[in-house]
Amino acid sequence: MVPHLITSLSGPINELEQRILESMPAIERWFRLEWMEHTPPFYCSADLRNAGFKLAPVDCDLFPGGFNHLTPEMLPLAVQAAMAAIEKICPEAKNLLLIPAEQTHSSFYLANLQQLIAVFTQAGLNVRLGSLDASLKQPQVLPLAEGGELMLEPLLRTRGRLGLKNFDPCTILLNHDLPDGVPKVLQNLHEQYLLPPLHAGWSMRRKSQHLRSYEELAKKFAKLLGMDPWLINPMHALCPQVDLRERAGQEGLRSQVETLLGKVKRKYKEYGINERPFVVVKPDTGSSSRGILTLRDAKDIDALLQAGAELPAAGALLVQEGVPTYERMHDAVAEPVVYMIDRYVVGGFYRVHAERGIDENLAVPGSAFVPLAFEPSAQLPRRSEKPGASAPNRFYMYGVIGRLAMAAASYELEATDPEAEAYD
Amino acid sequence: MVPHLITSLSGPINELEQRILESMPAIERWFRLEWMEHTPPFYCSADLRNAGFKLAPVDCDLFPGGFNHLTPEMLPLAVQAAMAAIEKICPEAKNLLLIPAEQTHSSFYLANLQQLIAVFTQAGLNVRLGSLDASLKQPQVLPLAEGGELMLEPLLRTRGRLGLKNFDPCTILLNHDLPDGVPKVLQNLHEQYLLPPLHAGWSMRRKSQHLRSYEELAKKFAKLLGMDPWLINPMHALCPQVDLRERAGQEGLRSQVETLLGKVKRKYKEYGINERPFVVVKPDTGSSSRGILTLRDAKDIDALLQAGAELPAAGALLVQEGVPTYERMHDAVAEPVVYMIDRYVVGGFYRVHAERGIDENLAVPGSAFVPLAFEPSAQLPRRSEKPGASAPNRFYMYGVIGRLAMAAASYELEATDPEAEAYD
Repeated sequence: MVPHLITSLSGPINELEQRILESMPAIERWFRLEWMEHTPPFYCSADLRNAGFKLAPVDCDLFPGGFNHLTPEMLPLAVQAAMAAIEKICPEAKNLLLIPAEQTHSSFYLANLQQLIAVFTQAGLNVRLGSLDASLKQPQVLPLAEGGELMLEPLLRTRGRLGLKNFDPCTILLNHDLPDGVPKVLQNLHEQYLLPPLHAGWSMRRKSQHLRSYEELAKKFAKLLGMDPWLINPMHALCPQVDLRERAGQEGLRSQVETLLGKVKRKYKEYGINERPFVVVKPDTGSSSRGILTLRDAKDIDALLQAGAELPAAGALLVQEGVPTYERMHDAVAEPVVYMIDRYVVGGFYRVHAERGIDENLAVPGSAFVPLAFEPSAQLPRRSEKPGASAPNRFYMYGVIGRLAMAAASYELEATDPEAEAYD
Repeated sequence: MVPHLITSLSGPINELEQRILESMPAIERWFRLEWMEHTPPFYCSADLRNAGFKLAPVDCDLFPGGFNHLTPEMLPLAVQAAMAAIEKICPEAKNLLLIPAEQTHSSFYLANLQQLIAVFTQAGLNVRLGSLDASLKQPQVLPLAEGGELMLEPLLRTRGRLGLKNFDPCTILLNHDLPDGVPKVLQNLHEQYLLPPLHAGWSMRRKSQHLRSYEELAKKFAKLLGMDPWLINPMHALCPQVDLRERAGQEGLRSQVETLLGKVKRKYKEYGINERPFVVVKPDTGSSSRGILTLRDAKDIDALLQAGAELPAAGALLVQEGVPTYERMHDAVAEPVVYMIDRYVVGGFYRVHAERGIDENLAVPGSAFVPLAFEPSAQLPRRSEKPGASAPNRFYMYGVIGRLAMAAASYELEATDPEAEAYD
């Protein structure tokens, strides 16, 4: 079962699909050359939105959960990619310490951990779970919904190393996005591999940095394919240090929104898109889905302020071109999510929401969603089929754009690496 | 559908399966360390035989055909492995020249080529076919049984490079096992990557060298698992320079056969195997399945000679412990074949013969066989299931033994590398 693209204007996306398929060997080589110069994040997932007239990543998660939604057919790919990743980072590796997020009592999240443990065990590692929760003093048994259990253990920090009781890992894998900063127990671990690096945590990431990196890559990629980068790149602007409680802050934002909406309108006109564009305003930092504004007119800001809408916190605000999602599963909005380990696409699924709109954030914590696994043939494009007609071709295109977001994360982490700055 | 193991004596193989599953992370790490020191062959396939009381590879093909028998579920793994292989050998690679075997008019072999082309195209290469047939002067269209066609082109040799008209490859991949020696057109290609290396061709390989390398690895592996290496290693002996037309040659062979049969009998006694052991006599060189003798008694040699049996050609003869195959699909003998690219198992299938015996060679050219793809979950062992009860577990074990044969091929190619000798 594959979601339908419900839009009359699918010409541009079909053309993009065709170009991507025709250029497959060139694209794969292009990525190969990118990875010669840049290190892929250990693992990540990218949320995409397909508007028919454009396709763009809207989030790149460097601590992905949801591995449990990958199908059994996809698992061997994940294992193989994990083998390749470990071989490069620490071929002698024997033990892997996995540090989960705090939501360790959700049965979905536990299933995600179980899947990650299965993948890395099969890739040749002894995997154990260590908790960042300092109040955990004894190993805790976490029963799994489908039977079996996991064991969460207290961390044991010695001078230069982090481990568990009788467990000294060579590599520590974070599945915790560190929204509240870097805990002391993770600082100054110079003898072990800590993945992803600490500056990938949400307290340090800036969305604008990722978007700048993505824009750079989208331009290079568009040049390779001979197409307009706008087809895969949402425009954005940054308002540094805005306080919406003050008049000056409101004015500054209004002007940025006006400018960006104008730019988007011109693009819509160029492509004959008869829709009303929108922009999304969100804080440049943090992963929270709260305080995100969707605006179709700069004047809406006033109305929202008067209505007492939840506002983004004071600080840098990002104004981003909104990309509607036109994929539908029955009547529900569907958003593809691509999963990657090392440089490889290992699978993906659709996040399906019945109650959200086409211009809303679907990755809402707590909100129900139906994961819909990609067809197993997602990795096998059929170059002879006509654009828009083949699920494997659509999924291959998603894998390419997902990898573009992953490459942007790699550029982003290089640009923000605190240790690299020491050499400047 | 999974073949049944038809034997009352499956205890040793179930124990082997259990040990392999329990030691999974250690085994994967062991391979990872092996590949730090040794280069895997670019691709290969290994024929295995499961006797219930032992499991052993009986052939390791360094120019594997039959990629067409891999299922669509396995293809993404092959693509990912091909990406990893290319990245290591020549990351800038744009063009790949594939040189097929001479059997290019068999529709099965054409399907194999088509699959190889699909895998390497998706891994980011432009792939074209060049023929070793010097009489081919114009491109030849080869129609495929399922529609479509392939194009076979004449090779174009310039001083240091090999290519096609308007096609200069960085890498040349042989799917031709060079039984008649190395053609001049392939000699002295120092500017391009030629894979596998020329000394992997059948005119230069010695089966005894492979078996010695395999024995060395089987011993190391058995030590890791704390088991008898005989469970995965067929014993063998080499008779150098035997001429069976002469009395002295017959005597020499008889004595070797007697000694080896004696050793196998002692092993059978140790394990309580109530069967009559056999040995297989074959030339140390060449890949032909002709002139292979199956002997249960040293005296049988005389009877065979009197009956005018087809004899192995004069030269070095290999005497190898016979491993019966007890896997059955309905009433037919089934032999698993494991396919590998770079260091990864990418799939496998069963070669099923209705008309061959348990002690006969199933890889008979021209003989009909039914390929039976491994279940898609072959890469996903279930550690909790009891030995012998789970197809994924059996296939995982086959993948481990297949990789052991691949590692042996790697040792073998290092030992016989003519360029390495220059440094001695």
